[in-house]
Amino acid sequence: MSGGTLLEAEIAAQPAVVEALLREQRPAFREAAQRARGAGVQWALIAARGSSDNVARYAQHVLGRFCGLPVGLATPSLCTLYGAPPRLERTLVLGISQSGQSPDVCAVLEDAREQGQPTVAITNDPASPLAAAAQTTIHVCAGAERSVAATKTYTASLAAVAALAAELCDGEELRRGLAAVPAAMAEQAGAGCGGAAELLEGIDRCAVTGRGPNYATAFEAALKIKELTALAAEPYSPADLMHGPVAVLGRSSPLVAFALAGPALASVLDAVGQARARDARCLLVSDAAPEPGEGVRVVPVVRVPEWLSPLVAILPAQALAAELARARGLEVDTPFGLQKVTRTV
Amino acid sequence: MSGGTLLEAEIAAQPAVVEALLREQRPAFREAAQRARGAGVQWALIAARGSSDNVARYAQHVLGRFCGLPVGLATPSLCTLYGAPPRLERTLVLGISQSGQSPDVCAVLEDAREQGQPTVAITNDPASPLAAAAQTTIHVCAGAERSVAATKTYTASLAAVAALAAELCDGEELRRGLAAVPAAMAEQAGAGCGGAAELLEGIDRCAVTGRGPNYATAFEAALKIKELTALAAEPYSPADLMHGPVAVLGRSSPLVAFALAGPALASVLDAVGQARARDARCLLVSDAAPEPGEGVRVVPVVRVPEWLSPLVAILPAQALAAELARARGLEVDTPFGLQKVTRTV
Repeated sequence: MSGGTLLEAEIAAQPAVVEALLREQRPAFREAAQRARGAGVQWALIAARGSSDNVARYAQHVLGRFCGLPVGLATPSLCTLYGAPPRLERTLVLGISQSGQSPDVCAVLEDAREQGQPTVAITNDPASPLAAAAQTTIHVCAGAERSVAATKTYTASLAAVAALAAELCDGEELRRGLAAVPAAMAEQAGAGCGGAAELLEGIDRCAVTGRGPNYATAFEAALKIKELTALAAEPYSPADLMHGPVAVLGRSSPLVAFALAGPALASVLDAVGQARARDARCLLVSDAAPEPGEGVRVVPVVRVPEWLSPLVAILPAQALAAELARARGLEVDTPFGLQKVTRTV
Repeated sequence: MSGGTLLEAEIAAQPAVVEALLREQRPAFREAAQRARGAGVQWALIAARGSSDNVARYAQHVLGRFCGLPVGLATPSLCTLYGAPPRLERTLVLGISQSGQSPDVCAVLEDAREQGQPTVAITNDPASPLAAAAQTTIHVCAGAERSVAATKTYTASLAAVAALAAELCDGEELRRGLAAVPAAMAEQAGAGCGGAAELLEGIDRCAVTGRGPNYATAFEAALKIKELTALAAEPYSPADLMHGPVAVLGRSSPLVAFALAGPALASVLDAVGQARARDARCLLVSDAAPEPGEGVRVVPVVRVPEWLSPLVAILPAQALAAELARARGLEVDTPFGLQKVTRTV
């Protein structure tokens, strides 16, 4: 990957950021987990927007799978516009926002705290309103993120969620797995996207799919592609793709599939088969060594335990989005006049 | 609207279907509400795919707003692939599926029932596996739906959720409002999409936005457009649109906005303003009589209480999708070889 942009520097910084987060924030993970256990939480509720909403999708998987918690994504408008915040009992409430500035996310945390629920902010600014609203703040330690498209704050927030899940279920094996991730990320980051951008050149739309923990990866990859290249990139679980949107795949509408080894792999490969039957080209981001074959290109991913693979598998997708933007002659650091901090209510 | 297709007959049938549902299923609404109250539910969890997932988005709003229940959307893969269903306590679990056949939706209900939670199926087939899995079945009374794109089962399922919310909070005013909806739908259905399809002719993508109860409408309208026309139609709340995807709006990428009178209207109109600033044409589906103006076209909607507006506002969007498909020479009843019943795990 050629470089020189803020975005590419921030993509390259991710392994070190995740390492710093894991080293420095363990007291915060522990405090959050203690408060949650002390409150006897049976549910989690998450308020987030944009890339942070994709972190929330990851949290749905890991908090459900390892901690047995059903996880809801908050509908902030019930707090901010309708004056009808749901009643919360035994609920761990997380607010995720790199800037910590969005009033709607803060409102959900403030309301939850008034209702006596344990509240946690995951943010890159410990002096932000979101941090002030929460009882416990996990600082994602990413340093200033100056490119509009979030990269290092996304993976650092994923790592914060993974670490919180490990503390909540007191999982030593989970912690050990997580500790090995920065090295795998560093190895992956060096490979860029392996020239895969050529698969998407000349098209104006694509679908992106992933499942299990990589449902989040599909959404985040699609968002990066949209933000940086203005391509119409639509994310789906393989199951949702089959319930209708598979209709839009075809010769000029390829599929990007996160095909990581684990229980979700077969359904992702099924979707790839359906896409090939419609003559759509497929790009597989995979640690499972699938056959490339006619119309199928594979970007290899460094293998880590499946639940942690979103931290590694997003890296080639970020590089892909940046390379596509460059190929299209677009400005990658401030695409399309977007603002870094978005204050929605 | 010209006709003769199954789809158009099913679109036209919606007011009568909703009327039949409200007349015939009140015992089921009451039974479901009694079981939920008896179990002291504090949360709701919903399993659904495709159009039914958009019904779930509507349920998040109305069950939160009127019944104080936080609502989570289930991640079925935790049940079907990971063997790790979350622990449920005091949780009302809804499965929504017109066919009632999807194994992943059934698995969530079966697991919830084993965990002793109250379970409700909302389905068009009371003999389906989903109905067998649930304690209470609400039959949406839509008759056979033969067009692949769901229309009458979507609005009937919305009405079932609205009626369930009214019973859960014993809201006589809510029930009265709902009883008046079929007449408003009949008036609306006669107007088709008012020729608005021309705004989307010749483009290959658009964004769709709505908030509050019409967040669901934005997702369902986008799904209909995708299923029937293969246009890339991307749904967002206005807040999510501002956090990045606004980048893709422009001269060849218009915005369809559900601008219904109520607390969410201002933020929808803000998004319209941002879209206009990027030179994107805007189609407003609205009961709030906004000015059409340069680049803005308005499809008028019959006014009902805001929480019920999704039942009326989706009708012009369904007609729009059908008209666009016809203009593009596409088959509307079985588009792109999609199957009516999709069995995902």
